[in-house]
Amino acid sequence: MKLKYAVLLTMILAAQVNAAEWRALPEVAPAPDDNPTTEAKVELGKMLYMDPRFSSTGTVSCNSCHNVMEGGDDSRSVSMGVHGKTGGRNAPTVWNSAFHSVQFWDGRAALLEDQAKGPVANPVEMGMEDVETAMDRVRKIPGYKPYFDKAFGEDSMTVENAAKAVAAFERTLITPNSAFDLYVKGDKQALSEQQVRGLNKFESNGCSSCHSGAAFNGPQTKLGEGFYAKFPTFGDGAYVTKYQLAEDKGRESVTGDKADANMFRVSTLRNITDTSPYFHNGSVNDLGEAVRVMAKTQLNKDLSDADADDIVAFLGALTGPYPEITMPRLPATAGTSIIAE
Amino acid sequence: MKLKYAVLLTMILAAQVNAAEWRALPEVAPAPDDNPTTEAKVELGKMLYMDPRFSSTGTVSCNSCHNVMEGGDDSRSVSMGVHGKTGGRNAPTVWNSAFHSVQFWDGRAALLEDQAKGPVANPVEMGMEDVETAMDRVRKIPGYKPYFDKAFGEDSMTVENAAKAVAAFERTLITPNSAFDLYVKGDKQALSEQQVRGLNKFESNGCSSCHSGAAFNGPQTKLGEGFYAKFPTFGDGAYVTKYQLAEDKGRESVTGDKADANMFRVSTLRNITDTSPYFHNGSVNDLGEAVRVMAKTQLNKDLSDADADDIVAFLGALTGPYPEITMPRLPATAGTSIIAE
Repeated sequence: MKLKYAVLLTMILAAQVNAAEWRALPEVAPAPDDNPTTEAKVELGKMLYMDPRFSSTGTVSCNSCHNVMEGGDDSRSVSMGVHGKTGGRNAPTVWNSAFHSVQFWDGRAALLEDQAKGPVANPVEMGMEDVETAMDRVRKIPGYKPYFDKAFGEDSMTVENAAKAVAAFERTLITPNSAFDLYVKGDKQALSEQQVRGLNKFESNGCSSCHSGAAFNGPQTKLGEGFYAKFPTFGDGAYVTKYQLAEDKGRESVTGDKADANMFRVSTLRNITDTSPYFHNGSVNDLGEAVRVMAKTQLNKDLSDADADDIVAFLGALTGPYPEITMPRLPATAGTSIIAE
Repeated sequence: MKLKYAVLLTMILAAQVNAAEWRALPEVAPAPDDNPTTEAKVELGKMLYMDPRFSSTGTVSCNSCHNVMEGGDDSRSVSMGVHGKTGGRNAPTVWNSAFHSVQFWDGRAALLEDQAKGPVANPVEMGMEDVETAMDRVRKIPGYKPYFDKAFGEDSMTVENAAKAVAAFERTLITPNSAFDLYVKGDKQALSEQQVRGLNKFESNGCSSCHSGAAFNGPQTKLGEGFYAKFPTFGDGAYVTKYQLAEDKGRESVTGDKADANMFRVSTLRNITDTSPYFHNGSVNDLGEAVRVMAKTQLNKDLSDADADDIVAFLGALTGPYPEITMPRLPATAGTSIIAE
């Protein structure tokens, strides 16, 4: 009897060790000490996030390229900002961006608070002269004041607080309780047989060596401490040429260090079925192809179509459910317009 | 005693006659016989309305220019479509467009169903080759099929049905129960003293000769039977030059009839505090100025600033409340993108 319990205990421990490698997404996103998430910040942040009036033309909001009605991005290879201008990189999803190890493909912002300020003054994104000019527009809309007051106290209409509010809203844009999460929590019916096969192939082929952790974007580190990988690692193959994967030098453009050439933040795989096209340059339209490209360029493996299909099926288990979002009412400018262009 | 009752009756009748001139907005918008509003159509229509993937660049949805988080328009003088292209006219508000006598400034569409198809294939708006090409994109998104099935039955993914769904959604975008409506329904505290003064000046100056009815856009006619006015009527003044009001020939561009020169559909004044800038060319930014311009160009009257202020205060009583809208979840394309440009 004693021996039986010991065997059982060993089995349980083994199962726990195995389960511990696959982690469910937390139900609450971590926040930095100086910006705890509050309801008032989230409410204000949602308004600012959805408001296109802080772009030069009044046509581009955060949500334009990171659309929370879709996969948190824009279905485009590279995003389109004011005046139809395009940038060089694919818009990363805002869903679970709270769990990104750093922000932007090249990690040039540590936290969501820093990231939020970037696109506003980018000439091919929101196209404002600078963030203070954008903030002047916010200050010109009387209806925003009470929301800042509530979130941050009196006289708080600053760029820093606007960024904090947007970041707080973004930290609510998370998708725990996907089929994968339910599976990890014990519901073994949550994944199909093919998805379980895909999960095992994802691991046995080595995908999880980079795409580990609850968000499938690397080991859990301190917020803002980036987890990078070289992409492509195997740089001389046909895929690299076909999809021009090596042209963007990635993190080297931030640090100026040759050692950072082609280094990119490891992306989350959560909701990846909803974020086509793929990669930093949005060059691959199909998820199965993206899986084959990654296997070849990162692991030097030629995946069979069957293996790629299984892995794609598994990745589908990382999608949603998405929380319901009520549209904010953007305060009016009371009989005037603040758009200049 | 009998006489007293007669006097009282006369007073009541007089009051009713007066009240009948000011009409509250109906709580339900009228719909054409062949497209009764149903919950399933509204749900589908909301999705199509918010989905930018049916524009050539994937960046412009109906909501881009007719933003229901704002005043149902875009805060711009003239709208900006794909590739930063601009058109020649100001985006009319979608709020209460169900009560417009006809659609578009020049009435070139009778009903919302007809209107919905216009911007999709307009090269400076959504920029698709034609509406069928846009519909092909809808058909490529598997998640839309069940919504069409539910709203219109099997094999129903057609342009006609998509337009019907969008129109059905737009018929829910109405704003009864504004302060003015409450006032008309008997709550005499609903308007401030200044607003009541403004209401009387609005009438005594003759604004209500065109801006009559529940939506302040003319007498109630059969759906799609346009109510037009010449703007400017007094065409040789300084305002006309300053704001280039006579350059757009309006309905003449539709009918080719010189008699229609400068004829425009009379606009609703509902929510006008939220729809700056003003007029068909969006040339006037300030509502007070817009009121003065209208008085001069349409009634040949020079309004005092005090009178204009009172009328602006009254117009504020025609704004909102806006219904709460939940964001639709736009169906994913399951690991591919359908955006070509």
